Amino acid sequence: MLDEKIKQELIDIVGSENFTDAKIDMVSYAYDAMGPKGNPDCAVWVTTAEQISEIMKLANREMIPVTPRAAGTGIAGMIVPFQGGIVMDVMRMDRILEINVEDRVCIVEPGVVYADLQKALAPLGFTLPTEPGSSIASAIGGNVATNAGGLKGAKYGSTKDYVLGMTVVLPDGRLMKTGTRTMKTSSGYNLTQLFVGSEGTLGIMTEIILKIVPLAGATATGLGLFNSLEDAGNAVCRTMSSGVIPSVMEVMGRYLIQAINENTDLKLPDVDTMLLVETDAYTQGDADMQMEKVIEIFKENNAFEVTLAKTPQERADLWAARKSTYPVSARLNNSILVEDVTVPMSQLARLFREFGKIIEKYELKVAMCAHAGDGNFHPLITFDGRDEEMVEKVEKANDELFKLAIELGGTLTGEHGIGIVKAKYMSLEHDPVAMDMMRTVKRAFDPNNILNPGKMALDNDD
Amino acid sequence: MLDEKIKQELIDIVGSENFTDAKIDMVSYAYDAMGPKGNPDCAVWVTTAEQISEIMKLANREMIPVTPRAAGTGIAGMIVPFQGGIVMDVMRMDRILEINVEDRVCIVEPGVVYADLQKALAPLGFTLPTEPGSSIASAIGGNVATNAGGLKGAKYGSTKDYVLGMTVVLPDGRLMKTGTRTMKTSSGYNLTQLFVGSEGTLGIMTEIILKIVPLAGATATGLGLFNSLEDAGNAVCRTMSSGVIPSVMEVMGRYLIQAINENTDLKLPDVDTMLLVETDAYTQGDADMQMEKVIEIFKENNAFEVTLAKTPQERADLWAARKSTYPVSARLNNSILVEDVTVPMSQLARLFREFGKIIEKYELKVAMCAHAGDGNFHPLITFDGRDEEMVEKVEKANDELFKLAIELGGTLTGEHGIGIVKAKYMSLEHDPVAMDMMRTVKRAFDPNNILNPGKMALDNDD
Repeated sequence: MLDEKIKQELIDIVGSENFTDAKIDMVSYAYDAMGPKGNPDCAVWVTTAEQISEIMKLANREMIPVTPRAAGTGIAGMIVPFQGGIVMDVMRMDRILEINVEDRVCIVEPGVVYADLQKALAPLGFTLPTEPGSSIASAIGGNVATNAGGLKGAKYGSTKDYVLGMTVVLPDGRLMKTGTRTMKTSSGYNLTQLFVGSEGTLGIMTEIILKIVPLAGATATGLGLFNSLEDAGNAVCRTMSSGVIPSVMEVMGRYLIQAINENTDLKLPDVDTMLLVETDAYTQGDADMQMEKVIEIFKENNAFEVTLAKTPQERADLWAARKSTYPVSARLNNSILVEDVTVPMSQLARLFREFGKIIEKYELKVAMCAHAGDGNFHPLITFDGRDEEMVEKVEKANDELFKLAIELGGTLTGEHGIGIVKAKYMSLEHDPVAMDMMRTVKRAFDPNNILNPGKMALDNDD
Repeated sequence: MLDEKIKQELIDIVGSENFTDAKIDMVSYAYDAMGPKGNPDCAVWVTTAEQISEIMKLANREMIPVTPRAAGTGIAGMIVPFQGGIVMDVMRMDRILEINVEDRVCIVEPGVVYADLQKALAPLGFTLPTEPGSSIASAIGGNVATNAGGLKGAKYGSTKDYVLGMTVVLPDGRLMKTGTRTMKTSSGYNLTQLFVGSEGTLGIMTEIILKIVPLAGATATGLGLFNSLEDAGNAVCRTMSSGVIPSVMEVMGRYLIQAINENTDLKLPDVDTMLLVETDAYTQGDADMQMEKVIEIFKENNAFEVTLAKTPQERADLWAARKSTYPVSARLNNSILVEDVTVPMSQLARLFREFGKIIEKYELKVAMCAHAGDGNFHPLITFDGRDEEMVEKVEKANDELFKLAIELGGTLTGEHGIGIVKAKYMSLEHDPVAMDMMRTVKRAFDPNNILNPGKMALDNDD
C-alpha cells in the first residue's frame, strides 16, 4: 500500500487523470500476456521525460520499486511488478516524432505500436523489418527492451540491429542521450546496445532512434510439406548456408496445423510439418531465383510437395495460417507456455528431434512452430493448468528444453527476454563472471535496485 | 623503467622469446599508424588467454598500465602507451579457430588479419563484409575494438553488426564469455556490444565469434563524374533514400584524383569529383536494375558522365584508384591527418560545402574522400609538419570540422574510434550524463584504471 503522501506526490507529477490505484486497474497491471501475477500498488501514465525523471527521483528517495511497461504483450514476466510499487505505463507516449527518409531514420516514443509505425512508413516505401509476432499490439519500447525478433529475422535480424540511439531516464532521474542518427559511429562505449534487451532494468526510454530500410520490391512465397520436423529442420539449415538468405522460414508442426484447421477455414493440408518460406529482392527475377534454389534444397531434404503462392490471396492465406498460431493454440487448453530457445542453425533438426523425445516422455501436447531461419524454436505447450501433475510435467519438460538448448550451443531466449520466467536458468547459459559483470552493470546504473527489481537474475548471487 | 623483478615475472609468464624491452622495439611500440608518440616500458607477445590473465593480475597488483595492441593500423592513438607500462601484442594469437558455414559463424583469435580471414572464407562462398580500408593489414581484434567500418558499410554496416560473442579477459584477470553463436539472443545484457568499440579499455578479447554472410552472386560497378563534391553528396543522399541500397558509394575529390594520376598510371579523368558505386544481388538482373536507378539519380544530380565497368579489368582499375587513396595522399607532403566524421545522410552535401569553406579559410590542401553511402567523410589533410604555423592551421581546421559534424547531427568518428586524438572532443558529442555513465562503466570494469588508461576521455571529469 502506497503512503498517502507519496500518492499525492505522484498525482502532482502526472495529474490525477494519469494516476490510478483502483483495484480493477491493479488487476490489469498485475500481469503480462502470460506470466505469473504481481502486486502493483499504483500505476501512472507518463507522458514526458520530465515526469519520468521526477518519479524516479521520488522512487529513489523513498525506495519504491518502479516497473516500466509498454503494451504488456511480453510473456516472460518482465513487466510484472512482483515487488509492488509503481507501474510506469508509457503507452500514452505514442508519438512518431520524426520520419526522415533521407537520413533513413525515424524517432519514436516508446508507446508507439509497431503496426502503427509500419503504417506510417509504408507509404514512404520504408519499413522497420523486425516484425514481431505481436506486431499488431506490441509497442516499440517493449520491442527494444526485449530485443524483439520476429518473422523476418532470418534475413533482417532483430530489433537491436535497428536501434541507433535513444533518450533515456536513468534510475536516478537523470536524462541521457545515447548514440546518434548517423548510419554508423565508433564514438565511445555503445551505451545504446546496453539498453537494448535490458528489460527496463537500466533506464526508461523516452525517445528511440531507429534505422529504417526500403521495402523489398519483390517477394516470392512458397510452402514445403514434410513428413517430419527433423526433415524441415535440415532443409532450413541447408537453405540458410546455401548462399541465399530467405527473409522468412516458418516451421509449423502437425498439432498446430490440426489446431488451425479446426479453428479456421484455411484448410491447410493434413501433414506432419509445413515450412513457409519467403524470399525478397529488388526484382522479381532475383526473388524467384532464390526461391528456385530453396525449392531444390527442400526437395533434397525430403519435402514431398512444394507449392508457390501464385496470387496475393494465396500468399495472404499462408500468412493467415502462420499468424493464427497463438490464438488457435490458446484455444487448445486452458493454459499455454510458449518458449523461444534459439540454437545454432546446424542444431535445429537435432533440437526438434530431442525435444520430440521430451514431450513424448512427459506425454505433452505441443504446437510446434519456429522462426526457423534464425534457429528460433517456439514450442507452444498447451495443458490443463488446474491439473497439478500436468503442471509439474510441463515444468520438467521446460527444464529439459532449456538444458538441451544450452547443450546444443544455444541461448535461452531468442526474442522474448529473460524476465522472471527464465531468470533461474540464466547461469545455465552465462558463466559466473558474465553473471557478475551483468550485476555489476546493474548496480552501477541502479545502486538502489529501484528499477524493475527481481528480473533477469540480477539480484541473486549464484 | 620496469622493475627487474616484474620483468622476470613477465618473462616467466610468456617466455623470454615473447618479451622485449629492447630500445628498437620500444620505438616501434611507441606509435600507431599515425598518432603521437608513447613511451612503453616493455612489450609481450601473448599467445593464450591464461597468459593474458596472469599479466592482468600482475599489472593490477603492481598498478602497471597495459596497452593492448593488434596490427597497429589505427590512427586515433588508441594503442599508443602514453603512460608507459606493458604493450600487449596479440598478433601471435592469429588462429582461425573455426569456420562453420552451417551455423554461418567463424571464431577467430584477435590477431587474425582481416584479409587472411577473407581468404579462408571466400572458397566457401562466404565473407565478413565489413572490409576496412586497411583490410590487407588490420586484424580482427582491432576491427572489433574500434568497431571498424569500411568500403561496404552503406549496405553491410560496421564490425559491430557481425560480432555475436567473444571470450574476453577482464582487467582483473578473470575470463568471461559473452554472447552466443546463435543468430540472435535476448538473454541478459548485451555485454558483447559493450566491448565492441571499447578500444581495449574494458578487456582483452581472446576469441571472437563473427557472423558471416554469403558472397553476393552478382555486382555492377559504375562511376559518376561531377563538377562539385556537393553535387556528388546530393546524389548519394538521393540514392540511399531511393529504395535501393548500393553496397559501395565512394567519393573522391579533385586533389585526390590529381594525386592518384601523378603517382599511378591509372589515368583517371581530370574532374572535380568522382563517385564510385557498386550494387550487388543474387542475380545480375537485380544488380543491374539497382544500377540503372543509381545512374538515373546521378544524372538528376548533375553528373555529367556516368560509365559502367564492363570488364573485370575496368572494375579492378576503379578499385585500384580508390584503394590507392592513402598511399598517394601520404606522398603529398611530410604529414597527413585523416578524419572520419560521419553525418546523417541528408547533411552530407552540406558537410562537403561547409568543410570546403574551412579549408579555403586556412589555405589547406585536402584530399577528399568519403565512404559516402553511410555518411562517413574522410578528409586527408596533407601538410608540412615542420611548419608550426601550418600545424596550427590544421589543428584549427580540425576543431572546426568536429564542431561542424556535431552541429549537423553527426558523430566524431564513424569507424576509427576516439583514442587520444579525438578524446578532447568527446563532450562535444556526448552529454555530461553519457560521459559520466561511460566513466562509471569503465570504473566498474577496471577500478584501478590499468587497461589502456587515458583514452576516450574516460579519465577526465569534464
